Amino acid sequence: MPGVFSREEYQSRVQKTREKMAGRGIDLLVVCQPANMNYLTGYDGWSFYVHQCVLLHQDQGEPMWLGRGMDANGARLTTYLAEDNIREYADDYVQSTVKHPMEFVADVIKEKGWDKGVIGVEMDQFYFTHSAYAALEKSLPQAKFSDANALVNWVRVVKSEAEVEFIRRAGLISEKVMDAAKNAINVGVRECDAAAAVAHAQYSGTEDYAGDYPAIVPLMMAGEATKTPHLTWTEKVYQENEAVLLELSGAYRRYHAPIARTIFLGENPPRLLTDTANVVLEGLDKALETIKPGVTVEEVEEAWRKGIAHSTVVKESRIGYSFGLNYPPDWGEQTISIRPGDKTVLEPNMMLHLIPGIWYDEVGFEVDASVQVTSDGYEHVYDYPLELIIKD
Amino acid sequence: MPGVFSREEYQSRVQKTREKMAGRGIDLLVVCQPANMNYLTGYDGWSFYVHQCVLLHQDQGEPMWLGRGMDANGARLTTYLAEDNIREYADDYVQSTVKHPMEFVADVIKEKGWDKGVIGVEMDQFYFTHSAYAALEKSLPQAKFSDANALVNWVRVVKSEAEVEFIRRAGLISEKVMDAAKNAINVGVRECDAAAAVAHAQYSGTEDYAGDYPAIVPLMMAGEATKTPHLTWTEKVYQENEAVLLELSGAYRRYHAPIARTIFLGENPPRLLTDTANVVLEGLDKALETIKPGVTVEEVEEAWRKGIAHSTVVKESRIGYSFGLNYPPDWGEQTISIRPGDKTVLEPNMMLHLIPGIWYDEVGFEVDASVQVTSDGYEHVYDYPLELIIKD
Repeated sequence: MPGVFSREEYQSRVQKTREKMAGRGIDLLVVCQPANMNYLTGYDGWSFYVHQCVLLHQDQGEPMWLGRGMDANGARLTTYLAEDNIREYADDYVQSTVKHPMEFVADVIKEKGWDKGVIGVEMDQFYFTHSAYAALEKSLPQAKFSDANALVNWVRVVKSEAEVEFIRRAGLISEKVMDAAKNAINVGVRECDAAAAVAHAQYSGTEDYAGDYPAIVPLMMAGEATKTPHLTWTEKVYQENEAVLLELSGAYRRYHAPIARTIFLGENPPRLLTDTANVVLEGLDKALETIKPGVTVEEVEEAWRKGIAHSTVVKESRIGYSFGLNYPPDWGEQTISIRPGDKTVLEPNMMLHLIPGIWYDEVGFEVDASVQVTSDGYEHVYDYPLELIIKD
Repeated sequence: MPGVFSREEYQSRVQKTREKMAGRGIDLLVVCQPANMNYLTGYDGWSFYVHQCVLLHQDQGEPMWLGRGMDANGARLTTYLAEDNIREYADDYVQSTVKHPMEFVADVIKEKGWDKGVIGVEMDQFYFTHSAYAALEKSLPQAKFSDANALVNWVRVVKSEAEVEFIRRAGLISEKVMDAAKNAINVGVRECDAAAAVAHAQYSGTEDYAGDYPAIVPLMMAGEATKTPHLTWTEKVYQENEAVLLELSGAYRRYHAPIARTIFLGENPPRLLTDTANVVLEGLDKALETIKPGVTVEEVEEAWRKGIAHSTVVKESRIGYSFGLNYPPDWGEQTISIRPGDKTVLEPNMMLHLIPGIWYDEVGFEVDASVQVTSDGYEHVYDYPLELIIKD
């Protein structure tokens, strides 16, 4: 399987990355973020608990994959790279206290004669530790290091047609995932059993498209826990008149289509919940209406803020971000943040996840929209009612 | 829920950590690794895609949790910490290009007057980026930084009785998980549907114990992919006479009990597979026989290596590691590596995952043992036959 996209698609990604490197005077890029590694080479393995990277030189050949010996066959199976561009380090580098895998990376850089230029590294991406940086810096005294944080992430922001198709497939899975949650969550059911139904739908996918693991496990906050995002599930059983926040996604070949909804288990949701839901849905609608090429990200947020200004709802955190290809811990891309000050200009085939979650001490409310910027507006990447779900 | 263990247990963990800090002359520890944060405070949230930490001073009070504003309620719900020890940063620190969350952390350190001593940071833990280090260093010019990598990990190596109980519960789930895989994997079934059955068993758990998400998703390599570990699943259907490698775990409240087996779908497994299985099982048995307090980790590996010396099987990578509490991307603890040179002396209540995987270009074989070191030997943390599983 030489990558899941065409060779032309990978070449185009590499080309765009090199253009950004040129703009910043970077000769060699060291890519450790797993989604960025996948984006440039197709590499797809759960090996990111050890150090690994992709090297991309400005003007020499295809990218190189460097990783642990036992993962080299994984690189052979999932990338389009030539054998000479798959380099493996010995196992005694793994979690060693006397040597660091980045010393091996530095050796390859020197072997290729790439150690005298400007080397871009992803300084604030998880999976690039301080020790990794220190080992490179020490081993490559002639190099000049430059912060290339999120450089590839920003190439990823505008999706190809093939990527759009993958996200749409993820969207089909997301619809099934939310249906599974809706069906499973009932008074008297354990939260863990509902989570199991959700995971089953996520991994199984549709008849046509196999599900993949989302970069974030099901976030499912019930009752008291609706005062916060980012918790998972417990052994507790759902109670009558409890709200349940669901932050989920389908995934198809590492591409996501996040979906968030709130379920209330009872006939009479509290006024605070329904009022909040109404305001948030109205504000979300205003934000969506503004989305089209040429608009800035902060204008989208401004429309939301103005849309809820008549209410008592206050939202201090960003209302969304860019999404697509990713690995744990995040399906967000660490590029666009939908908040004041983000002056990114929207372009067709950007993907925005708008999720203006509200977490009061009494109850929370979450709803979202995962949308593709189109040539003249936006489209949802899946079809699911925008509402507070009431199960009585 | 003031943490899931007793206050005494958390106090004991903090005390042991402080002893290690004293041994290295560390005044203040900045803990970013999510399992280490959980270990010291109980904090359990999927918020580790943004910067966060726990601060532990050598001689002042309980630990402090510092994180994103929207996650502070999660800290209130899952930790035992006093309100004053939960500190939240504003949302515009998140993935900002103009300021870093570690600047907020530095402000708190200065406020507490902790900026003039030796500050230990986890230099090679994922979730502690180079930028995080650089921001701390720049903001705290009077501090001296010391590498406290894996300091808390090493405290975690010896489990309390309560932790042993949690791992045993995870083990009960692991048995169900492997049964689910065994039942679901059949000729003609899509790999993704088998993965869905596995995930369902993982999250659902047992009647008495809710499952939690393992730190690694199901690794399920079939057919050609058995030449490598660390791949997940695809849309392909299982074929007659295919081997399937399974690297799975149950999890209970973030504690693991890894379980790996190999299934062959057919009556007549190839000779290479059965021969390898026999040798590996024999070597594993020899390694297990050596396990008891006072033995060094490298002696365990040596017993394995001698046990297979009569065969053609060669294993260049470590045959296992310490496991327990963890978050993605790894259920291993980044402490013990079962390989030559690891002179760690075994103690009761250490947990070892022995997984001498073999990946030939033709076919692979995986089997494992997750064991607790006891006062005079070892015990498996779950009960599952050590064999090549043949499904004809």
